[in-house]
Amino acid sequence: MEEKAFQDYYPDEMSYCYGCGRSNDDGLHIKSYWEGEESVARFTPRHYHTALPGFVYGGLVASLIDCHGVGTAAAATYRAEGRSMDTEPRLRFVTASLKVDYVRPTPIGVQLEARGKVKEVGKRKVVVSIEVTAKGTVCARGEVIAVRVPESMKQKGNR
Amino acid sequence: MEEKAFQDYYPDEMSYCYGCGRSNDDGLHIKSYWEGEESVARFTPRHYHTALPGFVYGGLVASLIDCHGVGTAAAATYRAEGRSMDTEPRLRFVTASLKVDYVRPTPIGVQLEARGKVKEVGKRKVVVSIEVTAKGTVCARGEVIAVRVPESMKQKGNR
Repeated sequence: MEEKAFQDYYPDEMSYCYGCGRSNDDGLHIKSYWEGEESVARFTPRHYHTALPGFVYGGLVASLIDCHGVGTAAAATYRAEGRSMDTEPRLRFVTASLKVDYVRPTPIGVQLEARGKVKEVGKRKVVVSIEVTAKGTVCARGEVIAVRVPESMKQKGNR
Repeated sequence: MEEKAFQDYYPDEMSYCYGCGRSNDDGLHIKSYWEGEESVARFTPRHYHTALPGFVYGGLVASLIDCHGVGTAAAATYRAEGRSMDTEPRLRFVTASLKVDYVRPTPIGVQLEARGKVKEVGKRKVVVSIEVTAKGTVCARGEVIAVRVPESMKQKGNR
């Protein structure tokens, strides 16, 4: 049986994210997993996700960091609560703040690896730092501050 | 005659950006203009650019800030050099660093306005701060540190 990604445990009504939602037919379907203490998402940008020809669009790298960070925030909170991701209540975070440093141009045409480290797990806030590598070389470093999805977003989502 | 956007002055071989390149058929075609001392880009996310249903994907907001910031960096440098954007050498910047604070959920289905203020124009580096509003309400604040496109990216682009 294939391992389920963090994002596969999001509640159905919160599974439409363009970056990582399983229910968004037009989306990127970024998927994150644990590898020991770190989280990993591997994603191969499409041919049109270019910045200058030959390199990956910075907004796509930011999106990878964003969704991987938010997914890692949920997974880390389940861990901190000592329960598995298929238990209730299901957790969903959103991004409060995103920072990306583009260390060097990211080559297109290869699989990127986003590797997350959990820096802080608070009651409401989780901080994840992420490195994006291409063929083992760091291309970007990011940090995501994720917070529990606010009630105002849930209500709209349920309409 | 319609006013040309900052991005319409990018050299042909550097006009394939997924976010703002006029030559990227699959891209977002973000376009930036001066409005006095500020720069403005207006963009209506597509229906599938969702975070949770009803709200815009954070990575899309980051992309809007990214391309608008980089475009503003080029335009601000032409201004600082006292020349128009149709004069040579054509300027092209890339993102060194991107930061986005998501102040409140961004509603989907309306036009977003990204408004940029040039904070610093250096020899190689330009800093732009950007606010993204929906129907007059600030949803995100960002900062882009843009740098002149490095030779290594130009070379690959010319291949």
